[in-house]
Amino acid sequence: MPELRKDPIVDRWVIIAQERGKRPADFASPTVNSQAGFCPFCLGNESKTPQEILALRPNGSGPNESGWSLRVVPNKYPALTIEGGIDRVGEGMYDKMNGIGAHEVIIEGSCHEVALEELPERAVQETLWAFQQRIIDLKRDPRFRYILVFKNHGEAAGATLEHTHSQLVALPIVPELVLEELDGARRHYEYKERCIYCDIIAQERGDGRRVVMENHDFIAVCPYAPRFPFETWILPKYHSAHFEHDSTEALAGAANILKDVLLKLRMVCNQPPYNFVLHNSTVQSKHSAYFHWHIEIMPKLTKLAGFEAGTGFHINPVSPEEAADILRACTVHP
Amino acid sequence: MPELRKDPIVDRWVIIAQERGKRPADFASPTVNSQAGFCPFCLGNESKTPQEILALRPNGSGPNESGWSLRVVPNKYPALTIEGGIDRVGEGMYDKMNGIGAHEVIIEGSCHEVALEELPERAVQETLWAFQQRIIDLKRDPRFRYILVFKNHGEAAGATLEHTHSQLVALPIVPELVLEELDGARRHYEYKERCIYCDIIAQERGDGRRVVMENHDFIAVCPYAPRFPFETWILPKYHSAHFEHDSTEALAGAANILKDVLLKLRMVCNQPPYNFVLHNSTVQSKHSAYFHWHIEIMPKLTKLAGFEAGTGFHINPVSPEEAADILRACTVHP
Repeated sequence: MPELRKDPIVDRWVIIAQERGKRPADFASPTVNSQAGFCPFCLGNESKTPQEILALRPNGSGPNESGWSLRVVPNKYPALTIEGGIDRVGEGMYDKMNGIGAHEVIIEGSCHEVALEELPERAVQETLWAFQQRIIDLKRDPRFRYILVFKNHGEAAGATLEHTHSQLVALPIVPELVLEELDGARRHYEYKERCIYCDIIAQERGDGRRVVMENHDFIAVCPYAPRFPFETWILPKYHSAHFEHDSTEALAGAANILKDVLLKLRMVCNQPPYNFVLHNSTVQSKHSAYFHWHIEIMPKLTKLAGFEAGTGFHINPVSPEEAADILRACTVHP
Repeated sequence: MPELRKDPIVDRWVIIAQERGKRPADFASPTVNSQAGFCPFCLGNESKTPQEILALRPNGSGPNESGWSLRVVPNKYPALTIEGGIDRVGEGMYDKMNGIGAHEVIIEGSCHEVALEELPERAVQETLWAFQQRIIDLKRDPRFRYILVFKNHGEAAGATLEHTHSQLVALPIVPELVLEELDGARRHYEYKERCIYCDIIAQERGDGRRVVMENHDFIAVCPYAPRFPFETWILPKYHSAHFEHDSTEALAGAANILKDVLLKLRMVCNQPPYNFVLHNSTVQSKHSAYFHWHIEIMPKLTKLAGFEAGTGFHINPVSPEEAADILRACTVHP
């Protein structure tokens, strides 16, 4: 069973999930399937994944059959396992607990060659809808404190399979970075009685230099202090702490802007590897007044090195004003 | 001039250091010199670096001439610039300051093909001595609050030049990760009146499963909660907060264990890219009772992805007990 271990000096948890039988040098080898290789996420290979949890089947086919347009399955090599208790224990001065959690894969489309941003807007919306459904379902399990949704696209961004997919991990603790973000938002609210994200949106719309695009309900901006070149955040312009409670109309707007921003990044940065992370409230609802869900998209164009590891600072060679300027100018609907 | 910008929500600074003229897609291309290409760090190319700050010249040659065995030069493409004032200013709700700092390169040997761990132990010791000299000198500048020493080896670990070198960055603020480490060590000291690193060393020596090697004054361990496969820390067994104050004998012991651990990693992990970071006290000496300098070596065998970006957790497929077992068994002096 995987273990969650805590560093004794700083508040940092790691998941030790041993992959037995792998030799040390194996970790360095790329693991992305070539298009010629076998893909467990392709149509017809449904039996090669664990049993599906959710699917969209426009032709009415049965579970784990072909004919789907979206599929959610448990990760075959989970970082955390669903069965068991948390069992916190000490080892001398150290602390650990069982690696309990859910680890699911959202297969966003059935065609191996088509990236998320190339899918029809409706399919992007269905992907967001699948995120909502899985969050709502997993929130019922009292062991889980946080549900993280993210996407790794491209080998340099950590994707181990090429076929377009996102991932969801339900965790027995609220991660440190989420706590920091909630704390920062809470402090601002206590002082000003306003949501800090609503304030950021107001300042960015007034300034304009870092705005990439807007639609009716959403805005995409390059943040003032971006860690990565062309880092872009997508935020609802209305205040909403819980992504999973937003309406179908809201999801349509989010899908529209997510697809367009990803297409802009694809064109401007030459099909970059990227990660995106859904920043959402915890399972508890006490953050509703001051937290504001959003998606942070991080193209992987630079490498993290000793400086970042030693400081937590990032060095970014592209200012957000320059990045937004280039992304704004890029036309994705000719 | 580079800018230090602070994220308005979390306590995260970024350095915006624009590299003008680079197109977005350029960031994805590898920049490591091939052995056939030109190398500004090789013997005879001294005029291609900025004027040297420190050098070891066994043959008595003059500054910026050939004949050196170690050279310290300013980074030609610094992340921070040495000239100017800090000038903290606000931009609406945001905060920034000038990117003031020193950024130096320690060229550890004159031969392009020879890695740090392949150099004679004496040369590794001279590298550590050079770190000390530069820290002592830069501490005199009242603008600097922290001096970071680190090494990027291999392209995947962020090295942009192949010729063996480390780097030093003097910063106008104490970075977040350093503050967290100092805080953790201080809390332990306040409660127990003991150094947490001394306690860790005692527990690891008693347990033995995570010890890689020891010599008279130093120990190498795989930490209990490692972020990366084969992550290894080197600590003095005596209590010392300030690396730059340690004796020549201490440096000899540190060089001995650093070289051997890097050689073990090289053999076990098939010449992995790696980073190491010197974790040292700040410029102030108030941490002397509870901080304990050490070197953290992080082989780059896994990729950071959306999960790490969203949580701050790391997923590590190799337990430190297994890693230490393999590293202990590896013989580097046949």
